[in-house]
Amino acid sequence: MTREKLVSIIREKQSYLCVGLDSDPAKIPAFLNGYHDPVFEFNKAIIDQTHDLTASYKINTAFYESNGIKGWQSLEKTIRYLDKFRNTLFTIADAKRGDIGNTSEMYAKAFLADPPYGFGFDAVTVAPYMGNDSVKPFFKYSDKWVILLALTSNSGFEDFQKLNLDNKEQLFERVIKQAANWGTEQNLMYVVGATRADMLLRIRQLAPDHFLLIPGVGAQGGSLEEVSKAGLNKDAGLLINSSRGIIFASKDEDFADAARAEALKIQQEMAVFLDKLR
Amino acid sequence: MTREKLVSIIREKQSYLCVGLDSDPAKIPAFLNGYHDPVFEFNKAIIDQTHDLTASYKINTAFYESNGIKGWQSLEKTIRYLDKFRNTLFTIADAKRGDIGNTSEMYAKAFLADPPYGFGFDAVTVAPYMGNDSVKPFFKYSDKWVILLALTSNSGFEDFQKLNLDNKEQLFERVIKQAANWGTEQNLMYVVGATRADMLLRIRQLAPDHFLLIPGVGAQGGSLEEVSKAGLNKDAGLLINSSRGIIFASKDEDFADAARAEALKIQQEMAVFLDKLR
Repeated sequence: MTREKLVSIIREKQSYLCVGLDSDPAKIPAFLNGYHDPVFEFNKAIIDQTHDLTASYKINTAFYESNGIKGWQSLEKTIRYLDKFRNTLFTIADAKRGDIGNTSEMYAKAFLADPPYGFGFDAVTVAPYMGNDSVKPFFKYSDKWVILLALTSNSGFEDFQKLNLDNKEQLFERVIKQAANWGTEQNLMYVVGATRADMLLRIRQLAPDHFLLIPGVGAQGGSLEEVSKAGLNKDAGLLINSSRGIIFASKDEDFADAARAEALKIQQEMAVFLDKLR
Repeated sequence: MTREKLVSIIREKQSYLCVGLDSDPAKIPAFLNGYHDPVFEFNKAIIDQTHDLTASYKINTAFYESNGIKGWQSLEKTIRYLDKFRNTLFTIADAKRGDIGNTSEMYAKAFLADPPYGFGFDAVTVAPYMGNDSVKPFFKYSDKWVILLALTSNSGFEDFQKLNLDNKEQLFERVIKQAANWGTEQNLMYVVGATRADMLLRIRQLAPDHFLLIPGVGAQGGSLEEVSKAGLNKDAGLLINSSRGIIFASKDEDFADAARAEALKIQQEMAVFLDKLR
């Protein structure tokens, strides 16, 4: 998906929400276990009830891999079901991959190549530690995106991301600057944890035009208002993810309606912030 | 697998070789394509011909993921086939995973939990960028190992791993020191690229007792002799990986025999170095 298209989706839906399908089989409503593929039934119901309120879905691969081959089947069915909404949704494989060049090529194919060669996501999250030749292969697919880890929302971000390099800058800042040489605002986003709203201003100095994927609103504790104020740019430039807060809003038969209600609350708040951009 | 057991395997086989099953479907011998699962048939033949010469097999998940659900089926069949040799082989999922705590838990389950809950590998490779809570969940399985990326064999290692922190140390050195607080010599190894033999001496100062997984001998250009001299400790303390140099030694019907011949050459060289340790 082009940047232009993504921006137009955000404008039309008045939403820069990303719904995270962290569909842990142990946490979905128990009554779904009667179905052949409970996780897919869960995702399908969530998508049906939220697709008009969200700009994006993010599939966290860990929650599928942990269910073995059945999990990968649920993942494949989910991304194929999202084809129904191909022109109105941006799809993210939250896989945090990254390896030497020939291996990253394989991961890029797996997630970004269109069927039958790969899953055909619009974007994949990538870990930066191994440097340029581990990231560049993901840029080979046109109109597909790399979403690079920069500053994450977990407590461990202090261990390495915040380290000072020769007193000049911190590691996450170097990652942002360096990666800007590998991709462009058309195919590179950064992951920035929403619990770090104070640092978003600094990141907007380094990357004023890039899109940022912000996990951590909701269960991980970030404030939608603070993050929006610090992070929105003229094209919105944000995708703010909420996973558990939406998909597990209820664990009963009304789970999809409850998810819609939560997504609607966030979308309405976002509409106000977007309105101020005009 | 305990460290004691791993060391005894290395001593008995006189080998610290790790054979990398980077079994790219596009590169395995064409005549195998007649089989229902060509990649599994390929792996099975390689394992049958090399298991007595190698201490370990490493399955690079990218080469399986890139083949979709069929790829995961090949991976599962391969790790289950390796059960035949459970007491004489150390198995590694080269997956380079790492995410926030609750997500890393899912990855840990996927790769380290024993069947039917997970694949039951002895070890998984993990990326350090997200810090302690992204790594620690992988230590929850007893007698299972984390193999943490420290200094990798690709050219991109210069981008971040070699950066100076306040002029005191480089990032990869901090990763090694910091992670030593999270795991022990009994459950933590480091990935150190073999193209960096000069830096192995420095790493042995930081981590004299830990096992190191060394990719990059062979196709990636490292010298077995240099790496062994710099890296071996009293328990061997090394697993040296070779992938393409062994498994693609021939692309004809004799591929498994050719793989054995290559593995044998390396094992015989290793036996000499191990002999000097006594």
